[in-house]
Amino acid sequence: MSLKSFLAYGAAFALSAVLAPAASADEGMWTFDNFPTAKVKETYGVDLNKAWFDKVQMAAVRISGCSASVVSPDGLVLTNAHCVISCAQNLASAQNDYVNDGFFTTTREEEKTCPGQTAEILLTITDVTADINAATKGLTGADFVKAQEAKSGELEKAGCGDDKTIRCQVIGFYQGGQYKLYKYRRYTDVRLVFYPEFKAGFFGGDPDNFNFPRFNLDSGFLRLYENGKPVKTPTYMKFATQAPKENELVFVAGNPGTTNRLLTVSQLETLRDVSTPTQQLMRSELRGRLIQFSEQSADNKRITTNPLNSLENGFKVGYGQQLALQDPKVMNAKRDEEAKLKAGMSTEDKAAYGDPWADIAAIQTTARELYLPNYFLESSLTSSNLFSYARTLVRAAKERSKPSAERLPEFADSRLPLTEKRLIDGSQIHPAHEQLRLEFYMLKTREYMTADSPITKLMLGKESPEGLSKRLVDGTKLADPKVRKALWDGGWAAIQASDDPMIQYALKLDDEALKLRKEYETKVTGPTRIAAEKIAKIRFKAYGTSTYPDATFSLRLSYGKVTGWDYRGVKVAPFTTFAGLYDRATGNDPFELSPKFAAAQAKIDPKVVYNFSSTNDIIGGNSGSPVINARGEVVGAAFDGNIHSLGGSYYYDGTLNRTVTVSSVAILEALDKVYGRTALVKELTGK
Amino acid sequence: MSLKSFLAYGAAFALSAVLAPAASADEGMWTFDNFPTAKVKETYGVDLNKAWFDKVQMAAVRISGCSASVVSPDGLVLTNAHCVISCAQNLASAQNDYVNDGFFTTTREEEKTCPGQTAEILLTITDVTADINAATKGLTGADFVKAQEAKSGELEKAGCGDDKTIRCQVIGFYQGGQYKLYKYRRYTDVRLVFYPEFKAGFFGGDPDNFNFPRFNLDSGFLRLYENGKPVKTPTYMKFATQAPKENELVFVAGNPGTTNRLLTVSQLETLRDVSTPTQQLMRSELRGRLIQFSEQSADNKRITTNPLNSLENGFKVGYGQQLALQDPKVMNAKRDEEAKLKAGMSTEDKAAYGDPWADIAAIQTTARELYLPNYFLESSLTSSNLFSYARTLVRAAKERSKPSAERLPEFADSRLPLTEKRLIDGSQIHPAHEQLRLEFYMLKTREYMTADSPITKLMLGKESPEGLSKRLVDGTKLADPKVRKALWDGGWAAIQASDDPMIQYALKLDDEALKLRKEYETKVTGPTRIAAEKIAKIRFKAYGTSTYPDATFSLRLSYGKVTGWDYRGVKVAPFTTFAGLYDRATGNDPFELSPKFAAAQAKIDPKVVYNFSSTNDIIGGNSGSPVINARGEVVGAAFDGNIHSLGGSYYYDGTLNRTVTVSSVAILEALDKVYGRTALVKELTGK
Repeated sequence: MSLKSFLAYGAAFALSAVLAPAASADEGMWTFDNFPTAKVKETYGVDLNKAWFDKVQMAAVRISGCSASVVSPDGLVLTNAHCVISCAQNLASAQNDYVNDGFFTTTREEEKTCPGQTAEILLTITDVTADINAATKGLTGADFVKAQEAKSGELEKAGCGDDKTIRCQVIGFYQGGQYKLYKYRRYTDVRLVFYPEFKAGFFGGDPDNFNFPRFNLDSGFLRLYENGKPVKTPTYMKFATQAPKENELVFVAGNPGTTNRLLTVSQLETLRDVSTPTQQLMRSELRGRLIQFSEQSADNKRITTNPLNSLENGFKVGYGQQLALQDPKVMNAKRDEEAKLKAGMSTEDKAAYGDPWADIAAIQTTARELYLPNYFLESSLTSSNLFSYARTLVRAAKERSKPSAERLPEFADSRLPLTEKRLIDGSQIHPAHEQLRLEFYMLKTREYMTADSPITKLMLGKESPEGLSKRLVDGTKLADPKVRKALWDGGWAAIQASDDPMIQYALKLDDEALKLRKEYETKVTGPTRIAAEKIAKIRFKAYGTSTYPDATFSLRLSYGKVTGWDYRGVKVAPFTTFAGLYDRATGNDPFELSPKFAAAQAKIDPKVVYNFSSTNDIIGGNSGSPVINARGEVVGAAFDGNIHSLGGSYYYDGTLNRTVTVSSVAILEALDKVYGRTALVKELTGK
Repeated sequence: MSLKSFLAYGAAFALSAVLAPAASADEGMWTFDNFPTAKVKETYGVDLNKAWFDKVQMAAVRISGCSASVVSPDGLVLTNAHCVISCAQNLASAQNDYVNDGFFTTTREEEKTCPGQTAEILLTITDVTADINAATKGLTGADFVKAQEAKSGELEKAGCGDDKTIRCQVIGFYQGGQYKLYKYRRYTDVRLVFYPEFKAGFFGGDPDNFNFPRFNLDSGFLRLYENGKPVKTPTYMKFATQAPKENELVFVAGNPGTTNRLLTVSQLETLRDVSTPTQQLMRSELRGRLIQFSEQSADNKRITTNPLNSLENGFKVGYGQQLALQDPKVMNAKRDEEAKLKAGMSTEDKAAYGDPWADIAAIQTTARELYLPNYFLESSLTSSNLFSYARTLVRAAKERSKPSAERLPEFADSRLPLTEKRLIDGSQIHPAHEQLRLEFYMLKTREYMTADSPITKLMLGKESPEGLSKRLVDGTKLADPKVRKALWDGGWAAIQASDDPMIQYALKLDDEALKLRKEYETKVTGPTRIAAEKIAKIRFKAYGTSTYPDATFSLRLSYGKVTGWDYRGVKVAPFTTFAGLYDRATGNDPFELSPKFAAAQAKIDPKVVYNFSSTNDIIGGNSGSPVINARGEVVGAAFDGNIHSLGGSYYYDGTLNRTVTVSSVAILEALDKVYGRTALVKELTGK
């Protein structure tokens, strides 16, 4: 009997790669304007040309929290099932349980708009580092943050004007070493075409999440619409009809969300000791509540499927991150890198920059002290959609009366359209679930801050979390989009006049919450950004731009090869097939075959490659990314990493870190044999 | 607005005391055979004589997981409400919700036996270090452990024979530096006399737990019975009718459960990185489940009150422990102490002992690897009483056929009576709650070990945690004490013949669980004990026995003074009064007055001291301990520590660490004015 647990020992990685100033083999989430083409040619013998990059960039799509790709000339977009599950949840009802039963269309008329969804395709990248630096020069604390945000909003507005089909976004790279204006083509009518039933898309559920071998049809299709018609997309990537071979070079184009590979050791220690453990404890208890809630009734189960899924995913990611942060080998390697960078500084640099690592370390005492108050007062309650609407309405009403540059960044002119769309589109509201979350975070605030703290007293008064959360959820009308629209349009006067208890509650908390946010910006965010810009400059001097920046949910390209891995003497093969799915099924959730897959067993080719692993360096946000071969064809949709990839927030280890992808051939086989989606197959293959 | 959270920054203590080889002022949980009488005299000017010690020892009582004291000549025993809540829960029914409504008696006939409860009074202490050392000499690994346990069982048997009114227990001190035989007078019929309603005993609930100022009537009374009659206890402590004064010297006599102040740094790191965080995540998720479960119905609320309370207490303790373990100041002080001890070793000692700290550090890799498998296969499922019964029955049947010295230690002859009593007495069984816990730990096993691990496969087969746990709980008859008795008496043949699904399931897991336990003893427990004995000897050479041993749930005496503390400029006063209770009440749970206290407000003297804080060094297990003045009177029952005391597992800081006590005068005032317990008041005061 082997007693090894992947999860328990996932962080015991080889660390050859941690320290390399230049990225090691296959490492990196590269921007399209700084891709190591020469290194790829040298390593894999493949010479990518401009046409290849142009096509991939124009076919790569950013959607809410995920990535995707255009795979037909008629605006058809491939992504993951878990990237469209919230759309399925929003379109569902007690009569149509799309989340568990799937959503299928035969004709385009059946395609339904996903509330709140947008799709963005990157058009151009412009360096605006000089503009940003000029705007913040000599400033400190909250002033630095405000000037930076104001200048970003101004550049965005200047870049895109009022054109709602374009979105401009200023993004910082290398923790502040570079600032670039990313200009996107923006689509706001995105419709659901295909989402498989839960048991097919999420076979193996949470236990198999981040594990491999895997057997998931974690794929879904959307379509871009404009003026009520599918968008013509002459630039698209072909859907491959052959699986990649072992050791074949593949690319992932997508939007990795966040990595923290360039943080300083003291910042990582704050994550290790404060932020991550706190969040893990919150996730665990909330998870226990949601599971118990979901077991109470079929309706509860339906409405919690997606939120629970997302919470469990977050927990597993956090678990892997915590293991990495606790690994002395990881932290020592980070320490060594800092020492090396410091030791390499010139006398002039030392005079100019001082010791920015020490500056950041000194900030950590305050960062730690402010973490919980900020978490509870500024973030936690927004876990309820209804409270989140109320806060957005209250703040938008306050902020819109100011000039754009004076506002909180999320309400700058350039960002208002998205904020408004998200607010008005909203999500389906399930009051019991909303109340559960509000009650939970009010309880946690009282517990962690103590009953006597001013924050708890402000939040609860003499009410109990149970009673207050119920009163707010029962009394509010904000579940109705028309009510939200009226309050948005009515501005500050409407907010002040509102007798909606959730609006009144958000108003009551707002001054203190904003005061705390400002304190955090003054004492933490501002000084951290200033020091981080210095470190970025020191790093550029040492290594040039032969490195890649941390992930920022912007378009990146990673390269790698299709391969398995060896861990503690166990060799994991890179491919799974449909045969493996049928072998793994136990008949019990979450290892139960979907009825459709069970029925199609005789028709399905068991040898078709279902999922595969590759060395590409990706992270959360990359979900749904096209995996692309050297010919520019989509060979699959990346949907996961292996368990070893969870340390990827902090470093990349090419010997173990793997991307997990559902293959295009499996998607085609399933569309044809399981779902009979003839039109979709034809659109993807021309046949 | 202050943004400080005690919980968040509780570990930022002054650490003056951590390093002191000789205990600093008021530090220490001293054994009765090594109390620093001279130091107390020097510090407080009080000279304790033998009569004082003898009386306190004979009046100090150990009960399940708690401490208590004899306070009348008729076997009346004072402890905490939270130490008798499980008795109230076991006696309760849907018709009599004693947990929430309280349990009150007017005559002795109404006193009810607490299932499973025993009470033990320490008679003598005998040093058996030489016997134990001789038995283990030259042995290693599991052989060392086995010989040590066998010799302990043998000494216990020799010390007590078959007399069921006496219990002998060999206890290791100083992590193995000394072994002593503790001989107790044992009472097995312990009856509930008084337990206050939940809202009085636990006013402030979890939010106020480990906080101060406090307002809890956390007290309860038991009575010792033998042959159906109250036991005569001529040696008892008087119940004080005056509150102690500020700075007055007070003692706590009780049974601190576990401290880890003498562990090595590498052991503490394993706690910090593996054991504590894992347990905290488990507690959090289970807590979420229990809260949601309890909110489903009044009956669910009733049956989960006590388990939830206990889980939340464990969580808060774990939270404080984790903060202490993460505090670099704590760990650096521990490192310095190790370095100092090592540096002070003589050449001969070095030759004789080598480097036992390095030995223990080397064991940690295995300790960490085996932690989760052991946790899941050997411990986790026993969170269900029904599974725990089944495992005990299966193992007892196997083990009793062997000679005592060959058995698992819990089944040695000297320990069988207690094991049998606990099994047969048992607890009230609530199937839905049992199923929730089994399902939970089966889910966690699959998650942490992965679905493909041999442990998960053994535990689940092709069943789901949800289905399997339901099948076992629905099918078992072990809730019936008669069924358990029959299986206990029937031995191995009855177990093998049983068609009870829980018995069959425990049987199925048992070989692998025991194999793992053995592996752990071989690779971790054995070598750790051997190294720890060496460290203890090195420490004795350096400091003599001027130090106190880690807590072992055996009788200890701590001393200190009644005082508050200063933390970050806030001065906390040592006393609260009944007036404060009425001020703090909000009308909402858990800050709602009990109806009885509300009704009695006009009668109660608001100036009576309710709770108070003192510098005594205590820890979990001390709950219910008498707090004693220099005249040997009980001035209260210790029921908690302040938030700073949570680091007490690893060190004592006299500037902040405080014991929290409910005063005897408050108990008398409440018995009289709130509850009208005339007979009880008379028994306590003679009036």
